[in-house]
Amino acid sequence: MSRWEPDASGRLRQAAMELFVERGYEQTTVAEIAQRAGLTARTFFRHFADKREVLFASSAVLLDRLAEAVEDAPASASTMTAVLAALDAAAAVLGGQHETARQRYSIISANAELRERELIKLASLSAAIADGLRRRGVADPEASLAAEAGIAVLRVAFEHWLSGPADQDLARIVRQSFDQLKTLTATI
Amino acid sequence: MSRWEPDASGRLRQAAMELFVERGYEQTTVAEIAQRAGLTARTFFRHFADKREVLFASSAVLLDRLAEAVEDAPASASTMTAVLAALDAAAAVLGGQHETARQRYSIISANAELRERELIKLASLSAAIADGLRRRGVADPEASLAAEAGIAVLRVAFEHWLSGPADQDLARIVRQSFDQLKTLTATI
Repeated sequence: MSRWEPDASGRLRQAAMELFVERGYEQTTVAEIAQRAGLTARTFFRHFADKREVLFASSAVLLDRLAEAVEDAPASASTMTAVLAALDAAAAVLGGQHETARQRYSIISANAELRERELIKLASLSAAIADGLRRRGVADPEASLAAEAGIAVLRVAFEHWLSGPADQDLARIVRQSFDQLKTLTATI
Repeated sequence: MSRWEPDASGRLRQAAMELFVERGYEQTTVAEIAQRAGLTARTFFRHFADKREVLFASSAVLLDRLAEAVEDAPASASTMTAVLAALDAAAAVLGGQHETARQRYSIISANAELRERELIKLASLSAAIADGLRRRGVADPEASLAAEAGIAVLRVAFEHWLSGPADQDLARIVRQSFDQLKTLTATI
């Protein structure tokens, strides 16, 4: 095995997903993931802390994109327009591989520990949006409320996208969910 | 010690909160909680699975009240009006003891495991509201979206209430947060 491993991280992710689907998450070991990818366990641990983190590898990218999008929104943008910019950025990261996203979702849904990890991820995304809004001068509780509502929209839109056909555009579903929230709150 | 223990559960909760505040959550043992309450560890375990669950003892009541409130909302009520009824019911459960709620919140905030448990609780409240809405004939994704948005409002309102003076009415702050969400979404 050469010391230089082209896209070792991507190969490990692919191998892990295959094994999680074939054997179940609990039954899969790091050694098996590395072997399937044609790599060593040592290489695995250079890329991921444990097998759970393979499923959350894109969280850091997602967090950065959300924060950047809130920061880059025009100064004149309303609070919710800045949140929507963040959700568009999230949709660009998440809305790519429909089948992989479905597999990941079904693996996570079947395991309590992974569901908890997913909740923590969503909470950190909400916190990142709220922080970005505060840097734009939005006070609390408005910043927290807009961020939490935004993540509620993202979560529901993402699950709706997963349950539908592969060719749907996640950003469009996010926008529809936002419009639906607007309609729902208008009836109070 | 008599076999009949008046309000053993309440005494254990009180003792646990005192010790968590005095010594920290991690440093407190079940034996110490029971001793402080003048009870045995055996009695403790008749009421709580472990020391963590002392902090989440009211979750089941909260869940029931939310579900009942959605169910009892008039058939003519809009989706969000039914959600607001659920949040009013939650405010009635949560909005009582301000100082105890603050202590509980600060104990939970300081511990990653407890923060995770709190996220799971919030997710289960959202699921209970969504289930109640589906039983009212609200389809998905509207049911999930309304429930998630409702929990976002409850969470932000609750934290805002905790950070303010003790004599504020939680139900009123929930209503204000709802109005704020309506204003925020109207600017998209």
